[in-house]
Amino acid sequence: MRIEESIKAYGAKINELLQELIPPDRKDYLSEPIWHHMRTGGKRVRPALCLITCEALGGNPSDAIPFALAVEAMHNMFLLHDDIEDGDTIRRDQPTVWVKYGTANAINAGDYLLACAYKITLASPVSLEKKIQLLQVLTSTYEKTVEGQALDINARAAEDFSVDKYMKMVELKTGYYLACGMVGGAIVSGISEQVIEKIWTLGKTMGPAFQIRDDLIDLTHGKGRGGVIGSDVKEGKASFLYSHALQVACAEDKKRLREIMLKSRDETTDNDIQWVLDVYKKYNAMQYAQEYAENLVKQAYTTIDEIPVEDKTVFKEIAFFMTQRMS
Amino acid sequence: MRIEESIKAYGAKINELLQELIPPDRKDYLSEPIWHHMRTGGKRVRPALCLITCEALGGNPSDAIPFALAVEAMHNMFLLHDDIEDGDTIRRDQPTVWVKYGTANAINAGDYLLACAYKITLASPVSLEKKIQLLQVLTSTYEKTVEGQALDINARAAEDFSVDKYMKMVELKTGYYLACGMVGGAIVSGISEQVIEKIWTLGKTMGPAFQIRDDLIDLTHGKGRGGVIGSDVKEGKASFLYSHALQVACAEDKKRLREIMLKSRDETTDNDIQWVLDVYKKYNAMQYAQEYAENLVKQAYTTIDEIPVEDKTVFKEIAFFMTQRMS
Repeated sequence: MRIEESIKAYGAKINELLQELIPPDRKDYLSEPIWHHMRTGGKRVRPALCLITCEALGGNPSDAIPFALAVEAMHNMFLLHDDIEDGDTIRRDQPTVWVKYGTANAINAGDYLLACAYKITLASPVSLEKKIQLLQVLTSTYEKTVEGQALDINARAAEDFSVDKYMKMVELKTGYYLACGMVGGAIVSGISEQVIEKIWTLGKTMGPAFQIRDDLIDLTHGKGRGGVIGSDVKEGKASFLYSHALQVACAEDKKRLREIMLKSRDETTDNDIQWVLDVYKKYNAMQYAQEYAENLVKQAYTTIDEIPVEDKTVFKEIAFFMTQRMS
Repeated sequence: MRIEESIKAYGAKINELLQELIPPDRKDYLSEPIWHHMRTGGKRVRPALCLITCEALGGNPSDAIPFALAVEAMHNMFLLHDDIEDGDTIRRDQPTVWVKYGTANAINAGDYLLACAYKITLASPVSLEKKIQLLQVLTSTYEKTVEGQALDINARAAEDFSVDKYMKMVELKTGYYLACGMVGGAIVSGISEQVIEKIWTLGKTMGPAFQIRDDLIDLTHGKGRGGVIGSDVKEGKASFLYSHALQVACAEDKKRLREIMLKSRDETTDNDIQWVLDVYKKYNAMQYAQEYAENLVKQAYTTIDEIPVEDKTVFKEIAFFMTQRMS
């Protein structure tokens, strides 16, 4: 499929240019941890979508390259900080940066990636007006994603976590983030404000749809950690299923559910995980999540229909890719 | 003295406006930890210097207020992250944010402050050209300070730490940072690039001078933690005195010095601290530091003489304030 090839080609280009932005062999206690992390993989989907969108809207994708790199740098900054915040020790079969280099170096390496994101955006070969717009996109995405992360890490302890709160959290944490590359590509292309607004809206439905699917995968196929089912439960992650169950369960189930979610990773037993899975089934959480995500995907396609450009192919391909294939 | 009154007046104004930038009562898991930290004090010296410089160079200080707020937000972002990285548990008699709210919330609160710094700079009531310049100043200061912090947290373990490496580290960690408020104020005033260059140079001498004095204070009067002498030794901080001693000491002293610096806070005994103090005396580290700092202050005044503006009073007052009074 065309879009996958484009992502692959642009992704390879981005990988090359990232090495110019952050030379891997510098002895500064920053490039080593950053490249330990960068080499664990990642398909560079976000920057590729930036370039693809720019091109599809008639812009010159090479003008969007700095912003595409910025998006990827910011993405990895969040991964470095999130791994510390979530206590994740392994990412794609490698020790996470905080495990290998210590928390101090991991915080710092993340901070540095963000500096790189701003530095490279400031070097974009575009007009001052567009540059300011790109910096605004980068900043609001950064701000909203941090706000979402704050809700996320505190959700597991919150008694009144609900589907609405989950949606607010993932809209903040994944919505802006997913749209920002596309929005940046659109800005560089010089397209109208109306188109840009619709791309933001698209992110706010596609992001949560993608996240709910991701939550479901954890309970059906497991998340690439040797296919172990229920990592989110073990981690106490505030998933869609948890938000739904917490909202509809009887007092007794709700109490035990919260107790299990609040347990540390090591304390959570296999029996606990099985009990949570059974409770999710009892309250039809999986089915509800599936329907909820499908509805969001439908909304995404409606938004695409409303984008005021003639050829909507690229947006349909991106939506299909993000909501069907990436999982 | 005039400059102190200005700092006080502008500092109060900044305090007020910070509450508009980050409303203290939001239930977002960000404003509470941020304000727990902000309320522990801070004289808002950096933003005040931004406004004072802008005014002295003929600019309208109210146009520089957003950038002044940005500098203060970034400053506090560094304090939040540094407290985690250094394992500091107390700041101005209050538990640090990571102690009170957990590491995850502290990382996040710092990240959010940086988002605020960019957001408010983007809202500056200045021309697009100046706005881009301000964003460049913010970004390079952020980048260089992170680079300096990376050198700092890894210096205690480095065998070949030296006065040159110390100077590189503090120039990065404190130099840009100290100058950036003044530079931002100068940009808003519309002054020439030559003046701005000299202010950067000023920061790169005043910052290290200030830091060396700070290192000395730890061994003479103690650092506001109930006047305890030798906190830096306990913490294993790579001070000027340590860099000098490591460079000139005999192999045996050097070995023991490194061993003590590498000990954790709890392992470091009072005897260890006394031994380090004696070694510093043996190698004339205090006297050397004093002379080194005085020389930097002289360089700072030479730089001020070279600033191509007629009235240099404000720079002399700032230099005097930063190198004599703040300590």
